[in-house]
Amino acid sequence: MENVKVILWGLGAMGGGIGKMITKKKGVDIVGAIDIGDKLGKSLYDVVPGMERGDREDVIVGTAEEVIKPKAADIVVVCTDSFTSKVFDKLKLVMENKMNVITSAEEMAFPQAQEPELAKKLDEIAKANGVSVLGTGVNPGLIMDLLVILWTGACERVDHIVSRRVNSLSPFGPAVMEEQGIGISVDEFNTRKADGSLAGHVGFAESIGMITKALGWKLDKFEQDMDPIVTDVDRKSPYGFAAAGSVAGIAMKGYGYVDGERKIEMDHPQQIEPEQVGVHTGDYVEIQGIPPVNMSNTPEIEGGIGTMAMILNTIPHVINARPGLQTMIDIPVPRAIMGDMRDLICEEAKIVK
Amino acid sequence: MENVKVILWGLGAMGGGIGKMITKKKGVDIVGAIDIGDKLGKSLYDVVPGMERGDREDVIVGTAEEVIKPKAADIVVVCTDSFTSKVFDKLKLVMENKMNVITSAEEMAFPQAQEPELAKKLDEIAKANGVSVLGTGVNPGLIMDLLVILWTGACERVDHIVSRRVNSLSPFGPAVMEEQGIGISVDEFNTRKADGSLAGHVGFAESIGMITKALGWKLDKFEQDMDPIVTDVDRKSPYGFAAAGSVAGIAMKGYGYVDGERKIEMDHPQQIEPEQVGVHTGDYVEIQGIPPVNMSNTPEIEGGIGTMAMILNTIPHVINARPGLQTMIDIPVPRAIMGDMRDLICEEAKIVK
Repeated sequence: MENVKVILWGLGAMGGGIGKMITKKKGVDIVGAIDIGDKLGKSLYDVVPGMERGDREDVIVGTAEEVIKPKAADIVVVCTDSFTSKVFDKLKLVMENKMNVITSAEEMAFPQAQEPELAKKLDEIAKANGVSVLGTGVNPGLIMDLLVILWTGACERVDHIVSRRVNSLSPFGPAVMEEQGIGISVDEFNTRKADGSLAGHVGFAESIGMITKALGWKLDKFEQDMDPIVTDVDRKSPYGFAAAGSVAGIAMKGYGYVDGERKIEMDHPQQIEPEQVGVHTGDYVEIQGIPPVNMSNTPEIEGGIGTMAMILNTIPHVINARPGLQTMIDIPVPRAIMGDMRDLICEEAKIVK
Repeated sequence: MENVKVILWGLGAMGGGIGKMITKKKGVDIVGAIDIGDKLGKSLYDVVPGMERGDREDVIVGTAEEVIKPKAADIVVVCTDSFTSKVFDKLKLVMENKMNVITSAEEMAFPQAQEPELAKKLDEIAKANGVSVLGTGVNPGLIMDLLVILWTGACERVDHIVSRRVNSLSPFGPAVMEEQGIGISVDEFNTRKADGSLAGHVGFAESIGMITKALGWKLDKFEQDMDPIVTDVDRKSPYGFAAAGSVAGIAMKGYGYVDGERKIEMDHPQQIEPEQVGVHTGDYVEIQGIPPVNMSNTPEIEGGIGTMAMILNTIPHVINARPGLQTMIDIPVPRAIMGDMRDLICEEAKIVK
């Protein structure tokens, strides 16, 4: 079997990081790369910091028109946007060229939640072209949804779910510090919350949509809110600083109502340097049911590496899937690929033979 | 769509317990029951303690010849044995009658590990008859294998895995007390260990086989061993008693070697009344890798209810699966069925239309 052929669309921290992971794996080649601006025309291996070419064939970064050709690869990895509406045209173009596609766009983890019309269209386009499309990452995609769902597999009955992720923003760069309002005043937080310029976490609607769909619960209502995490002491991370009295992070909360009851609670405080004030980071699942579940993972799975790994590790599942829009509850569980990626591919699902 | 039709084969604690769970669910009917001896000819609802008939049609317990007829149900739940060789003929008979089958037999969670020839035959029979066969439970089937595999989905690299399940045998009845040697002397433990009459845990070979297959590791060698858990104090559970100096449980250990290294360790001490000596029960996953995982669930998921729920909850997945032998790494993640079971069934996969 030919190696699995991958095109990278978007070479930022996420797309570039996935590229670097791919070069460490067996049975998979990067055969194309797409970006914009001054990356065009350069070698992928020069554009992504720390990515080693070794004895691989060179890949020159091109435009979508140059790189997206019929059956040019088995799959295209699109890491350019967070929202379904922003990434829709890219996914469509890839699928109309008879290639599978996977994206880090958070809303695409369960586009049925906020973009049901676009989700329907994506499903139709995928089926018409005999390919699959999936959005995934560590959250949404694993920690606050698929992991919760997996635990309920051992339950006769589920009455109430709390999914909590307490994480540190310290590993992230200047763009995340700005998006999350690190170091701003509470007044500025409130202004930016009102005008929608604080990113917070994108994914609660998707995680709750995925959980309710999986369990067969009818979601009556979804709500979410964000509060500032105001620090009592100065906190300094590699790319962020929050003086005492300013905002060191965002506490996100989300709720899913079923049969008039608040059955799902999502709790996701994100901040720089949580250890400095005695906050222990971790991932938590608390299920009231028969039997109950009381899970913790400490510290939390790091968001950046975790998302890159999830995308890399689900490539074979997306190639193998029946045509259509896939979500994490439709495909087999993700797993670290420690052997040759071709061993995980069904012969008849391979595009580049 | 017609309700999902289920036949129960084996009405002991496990099969009967699954029957009781089914009566609490929507969109699913029990249409047949098989057992032996003095249960034959009686109502299922009289034979299984605490199972309420309500306004359901009665089901009379029959022999396999009486109940297993072509397409008589969508799936048959076989809870009679632990070993693939013991359950093989039953699975074959069901599939030759064009029905899907699911079993609690521990070895069937990954029959490729210890019975590769039978696994191959089961896959062939399933495909020849257009149906699927799966073995599952809470362990093997979830806690010490599928859950571990799910966590690796967030990993770029996995170097070493510890899967630990510290559980209490106190909820179990006299048969388990006898099988696990509760209350016997260390000498008797050693004699029974040598003659193979101590059950211990059946499943390490299957769990390690499933993990290595999922990750693409080549398993060089599998080893397991058991040691007595000798109690310092008298311990009394509802059905068991271990005097000070006698055996209160069995400590099972299992190891998987990959590339000459011990990469997977399974640690599973099972005993009555662990709390009495300060042992905290729980399920644990420790992965050395990028990123690392350090998960605990306390107390442990109870084995009995957990296994019944896992079998109930994977019924739709087995009905929907492509024909063949399935394992938990081939199908979507299990999930609690809180709505109508028919909502989870693909129309074209339904047998009783």
